[in-house]
Amino acid sequence: MKKRIKMGMVGGGEGAFIGEIHRISARLDNEIELVCGALSSCPQLAISSGENLGLSRIYSSYQEMIKEEKKLPQEEKMDFVVIVTPNHFHFPVAKMAIENGFSVLSDKPATLSLEEARNLHSLLEKTGKIYGITYNYSGYPLIQEARKMVAEGKLGKIRKVLVEYSQAWLATPLEREEHKQASWRTDPSRAGLAGCMGDIGSHSFHLSEFVSGLKIKEVAADLSSFVPERKLDDDGAVLLRLEDGARGVLSASQIAVGEENRLRLCVYGEKGGLEWEQKDPNTLLFKPLDSPIQVLRAGMPYLSKEAEAFSRLPASHPEGYIEAFANLYKEFALALREENSRDKKENNFPSILEALRGMAFIEAVVESSKQNSIWIPIKE
Amino acid sequence: MKKRIKMGMVGGGEGAFIGEIHRISARLDNEIELVCGALSSCPQLAISSGENLGLSRIYSSYQEMIKEEKKLPQEEKMDFVVIVTPNHFHFPVAKMAIENGFSVLSDKPATLSLEEARNLHSLLEKTGKIYGITYNYSGYPLIQEARKMVAEGKLGKIRKVLVEYSQAWLATPLEREEHKQASWRTDPSRAGLAGCMGDIGSHSFHLSEFVSGLKIKEVAADLSSFVPERKLDDDGAVLLRLEDGARGVLSASQIAVGEENRLRLCVYGEKGGLEWEQKDPNTLLFKPLDSPIQVLRAGMPYLSKEAEAFSRLPASHPEGYIEAFANLYKEFALALREENSRDKKENNFPSILEALRGMAFIEAVVESSKQNSIWIPIKE
Amino acid sequence: MKKRIKMGMVGGGEGAFIGEIHRISARLDNEIELVCGALSSCPQLAISSGENLGLSRIYSSYQEMIKEEKKLPQEEKMDFVVIVTPNHFHFPVAKMAIENGFSVLSDKPATLSLEEARNLHSLLEKTGKIYGITYNYSGYPLIQEARKMVAEGKLGKIRKVLVEYSQAWLATPLEREEHKQASWRTDPSRAGLAGCMGDIGSHSFHLSEFVSGLKIKEVAADLSSFVPERKLDDDGAVLLRLEDGARGVLSASQIAVGEENRLRLCVYGEKGGLEWEQKDPNTLLFKPLDSPIQVLRAGMPYLSKEAEAFSRLPASHPEGYIEAFANLYKEFALALREENSRDKKENNFPSILEALRGMAFIEAVVESSKQNSIWIPIKE
Amino acid sequence: MKKRIKMGMVGGGEGAFIGEIHRISARLDNEIELVCGALSSCPQLAISSGENLGLSRIYSSYQEMIKEEKKLPQEEKMDFVVIVTPNHFHFPVAKMAIENGFSVLSDKPATLSLEEARNLHSLLEKTGKIYGITYNYSGYPLIQEARKMVAEGKLGKIRKVLVEYSQAWLATPLEREEHKQASWRTDPSRAGLAGCMGDIGSHSFHLSEFVSGLKIKEVAADLSSFVPERKLDDDGAVLLRLEDGARGVLSASQIAVGEENRLRLCVYGEKGGLEWEQKDPNTLLFKPLDSPIQVLRAGMPYLSKEAEAFSRLPASHPEGYIEAFANLYKEFALALREENSRDKKENNFPSILEALRGMAFIEAVVESSKQNSIWIPIKE
Repeated sequence: MKKRIKMGMVGGGEGAFIGEIHRISARLDNEIELVCGALSSCPQLAISSGENLGLSRIYSSYQEMIKEEKKLPQEEKMDFVVIVTPNHFHFPVAKMAIENGFSVLSDKPATLSLEEARNLHSLLEKTGKIYGITYNYSGYPLIQEARKMVAEGKLGKIRKVLVEYSQAWLATPLEREEHKQASWRTDPSRAGLAGCMGDIGSHSFHLSEFVSGLKIKEVAADLSSFVPERKLDDDGAVLLRLEDGARGVLSASQIAVGEENRLRLCVYGEKGGLEWEQKDPNTLLFKPLDSPIQVLRAGMPYLSKEAEAFSRLPASHPEGYIEAFANLYKEFALALREENSRDKKENNFPSILEALRGMAFIEAVVESSKQNSIWIPIKE
Repeated sequence: MKKRIKMGMVGGGEGAFIGEIHRISARLDNEIELVCGALSSCPQLAISSGENLGLSRIYSSYQEMIKEEKKLPQEEKMDFVVIVTPNHFHFPVAKMAIENGFSVLSDKPATLSLEEARNLHSLLEKTGKIYGITYNYSGYPLIQEARKMVAEGKLGKIRKVLVEYSQAWLATPLEREEHKQASWRTDPSRAGLAGCMGDIGSHSFHLSEFVSGLKIKEVAADLSSFVPERKLDDDGAVLLRLEDGARGVLSASQIAVGEENRLRLCVYGEKGGLEWEQKDPNTLLFKPLDSPIQVLRAGMPYLSKEAEAFSRLPASHPEGYIEAFANLYKEFALALREENSRDKKENNFPSILEALRGMAFIEAVVESSKQNSIWIPIKE
Repeated sequence: MKKRIKMGMVGGGEGAFIGEIHRISARLDNEIELVCGALSSCPQLAISSGENLGLSRIYSSYQEMIKEEKKLPQEEKMDFVVIVTPNHFHFPVAKMAIENGFSVLSDKPATLSLEEARNLHSLLEKTGKIYGITYNYSGYPLIQEARKMVAEGKLGKIRKVLVEYSQAWLATPLEREEHKQASWRTDPSRAGLAGCMGDIGSHSFHLSEFVSGLKIKEVAADLSSFVPERKLDDDGAVLLRLEDGARGVLSASQIAVGEENRLRLCVYGEKGGLEWEQKDPNTLLFKPLDSPIQVLRAGMPYLSKEAEAFSRLPASHPEGYIEAFANLYKEFALALREENSRDKKENNFPSILEALRGMAFIEAVVESSKQNSIWIPIKE
Repeated sequence: MKKRIKMGMVGGGEGAFIGEIHRISARLDNEIELVCGALSSCPQLAISSGENLGLSRIYSSYQEMIKEEKKLPQEEKMDFVVIVTPNHFHFPVAKMAIENGFSVLSDKPATLSLEEARNLHSLLEKTGKIYGITYNYSGYPLIQEARKMVAEGKLGKIRKVLVEYSQAWLATPLEREEHKQASWRTDPSRAGLAGCMGDIGSHSFHLSEFVSGLKIKEVAADLSSFVPERKLDDDGAVLLRLEDGARGVLSASQIAVGEENRLRLCVYGEKGGLEWEQKDPNTLLFKPLDSPIQVLRAGMPYLSKEAEAFSRLPASHPEGYIEAFANLYKEFALALREENSRDKKENNFPSILEALRGMAFIEAVVESSKQNSIWIPIKE
């Protein structure tokens, strides 16, 4: 039996949302073990949170964690750091971890600015450490299938991409009610340049490029802050121009009352269309030019091996968000295992390249919106 | 029993698509009788088509029809002209009909240019004739309900409108295959300034304003012609800025392979959201801020009287496109009956004002797209 | 142009539900003209209802109508009688009409008893008149497609049929509130042996046999009257044994709170399955053994000519209940036109044979339920 | 931090399906640790499977495991045995485990016969050990909500229950192709009296009673074996009579080509209806008598605390089959922790009582079907 990969967590203490999802996802396939953590920027909370989780090694700061773990023998110390903090910590934690020889799995967006992301990129090229970023929607088996179908030409040349991500949770001034998530996500010093676009626009951007296989070349954006006194955008729409003449629209909103977490992607090519919606993540509609729509379902034997690899159960044992998230962990663990292997398979998780593009997207839409929606190129 | 309103039809001969829908819709409620027609711009086809339909008075041109009908006694001659021709005839036929004392029901878009639409407007103000335009989606009972709910404040202040109209029928160069519909709809001399935007973008525009109750003030558009050698846009996306700070996105495509006639509208306010899709026109989702989504269904007793007036059957006897279309005819017939009545109720069908706005929209999106998507105001 | 077929209507006066649907359906394709009526069993109401509709020939009873129409010249008198009364009039009206040389289109169930239906059958064999019965769900284009697919062997040998028809309208004692429909439908002297089973169970039965192409040989039924003091069943479930070893379940309810008119049919064979639901009548799911589910849509070019003949519009211009109903009228009108033609096409509307089977079904389920659900054969 | 509960597994070696689901589910919430196993009835396979999983204590038979574990000190030995073998081992393993002081979590059905289940029951009463059975569909949060709503009277007195469970996997003679699952599930000596009814009919039965809160008093069943030479039923339909006059229908099939694992439940009361389908397990439709259908969604704040306890994520982060399964594990772990606590909360997982009823159901439907579908009471 394989030894489990050892994970150290930064962030994700009491009151956090995404930390627990990371922990469950990491645990799901029994490939990864949480060995230590610095779960909060507040030392006391870091310690109490660690105790509640029964962590064996609890640190009061990420700096301490990285320093101390470094000293441990190889078979004991953590193999990688997962960063599940508010955005402004993503860069410093990742940087310090990499510089000290640890691989990193980071929440998105990668950093607060494109420049920071470029710094990370250089550092990774220098050190050769492994870096992943949890653009987790690519972990759904049918997103894998969609990407594969496009890549295999089943849709023909791609013409149009529609992506929509609508949530309701910031429809009211939640940040004024001591809501931890809302508080940092609407604060430029902790969230970065963008609110809605940084949080869910960047997911939509990633998903569009991931499935279509096309880079988005330029954007024309109109961002809004509907809730009075909110400092960052809570809604926005973006016209997209992709490689090879394809066009698209990206709409993201955190004030779409009544929507839970509605993420929907449609891709149209010359020969067929695809539709996927997170609400029913185990269904992918394939719409060929002259024949009936096909309902592709996760877990079915007619799917590609890429999709199969991301399903644990046969069809109609619905798998969901956690399983998709766990797929990225599984792939990341595999990459760590194969780090020094000669015939390692290609990584199937978002990397520093996707991290860079995400930051470039955020900067471009913010710039376009400032300039009354003129077209702004996305430059890594 | 009431006498039926007498209709003369221009266009809609053999090979036409929409003419038969108009005839069925006019007949559905037994309020209107087709008494004459000039069904084609080709005199021979006009006559043979009229014979096939068993029309009592068949004319070889609309000019002849208008002149001859004018001479007939009041109780015999047509009460109004319905125009179901390609776009370039909409204006001249409407103009001549109105000038000769006939009311007009016209297919959309109203004319080839905003200026022509303004001319019609002046003419109507001078003559007092009744003019309707078949932005037919407002004929669905649940679109009436949606408008009513917004007007009553059930959604609170409106913030965002998403409208999407996707079709596949022009995904291939159909116009080069002697396809009558495709031929004129992709020909600027017959269709006007815009292709996709004129045909279905204008419907989406109308529906957005109709339901939200807000005027769209300016647009930033990116139109495309994906099919080589096509002379008009077959796809486009438009950022919208509406009154009172609301924002929106309009996406329309005729190259969305696999989509039949997908028209979807989402409206979000401070207190609730609405969602409607033509594929299941008898369902309207209402999404209140803090409670479960409600599934409103056509024909149910809890709906408003506006919605009730547009249903013929109790819930779950599904009504469709024809019934919705017929609702506009029913309202138009009612307006003609009440023309000289003192206490006539307000018309509930799209009028010359909607016709004007439709043309203003088309000109604005075409202009914006020409200027690399800068914001262009919609000026009637 | 063809002359329109002339229809006389019995029943369908003020307060009736189905009469207006028949009138709209008859009118839809401009093939049929309503020329006379005896619209109520109350002479006064018969006359006032006729006046409201602007009928040219109004009769105060069906006897009068049949006698008087018989005397008119061929080119003037009605061609057929449509019967839209409560059930207990179906037989006497049909009988008298046929005996006096008129064809008949009748609401279902055909009669109050199987014996009456057999009498009608004999009479029709003797007279050669045309008889149709509005098991109207077979008028949906995708029900035609479903039947065709089964007949062509696309599902292989049929194994199982699931049919469910759930309504809510009789969940409360509506018959005690002077509700005209509820009143006669729960009264054995006017509705017959069965309530729910006669009204909607019979539709489900017909649809099952129509699509599967298999006769139901025996039934084991458990009928209930949930509403206190109700004299007829308002709910029931029936085990089905069909020809060739197929099995099935039929569930019908008029007390299924929250269901509008939910009619759903699933058919499974050795090689594939089918699913159709009236709520979205323009979609048929085809589920082949080893490949993805296909979404068949009304109006699409890949459908059979049988389905095509029952669509008026291209796909995604949703057609509904009225259009399906009108399809039976169109077929019935065609049969009347071709009555004396040598090469008439096969009738595509439910006939006296379906009428007989419907009555046999009703008698069998009532008998089975009385005998504590033992299996009872369906004998015509 | 709490110590993890220690689990020993019987069955679930290579080639098994459900074992891995149990392991993932047990691991999900970090409450349970797999410490030992006898993973196959073949000693060699038991050992190699254990090695592949990296189990610390691997046994070659369940007898050995129970004997050896018993000798270990309390803080080391397993706390309970999970049984994931073919059915014929459920009873002997459970019996031996309980007799040796271990609690048991068992796959369903509990045993091969009602009598065996009664034996277990007595044994449990004598020993006081904890017993759970994975009727896992009750682990979905919205099934909890449904049960709660019925219990609170939101539907009024229950009248009708419709439950349908359709699969395709046994539509062909898979058991003749060395398919391990198919092989034992169609073999009476390993599966028991019933095939389809034992495997998925029993789930449907449990779900119906769980949600409706009513016991099913008698059944009239018609079971079939469609695939030639198959020794057990692969399809069946059952009429249900429940307490308090409610009625129902249960349909289960393993030959429903095109269905994956379609489990659907509708419950109708005097004041409202409920609908749930496993395909979209995070949605529950509530259909009140006179107002719009409500779409209840997992993870939303308006749900009951019972539903909330079974969700890990906010709404629209879809959770699925594994999460539902894990909920039973979580509850089972809690019961073990609180075993000797005075104020333990009520267990929320299926117990020996549900185990008994499941066996009584299986025996009753088999008996009814043998006797040509006469009504047979369900007697524990």
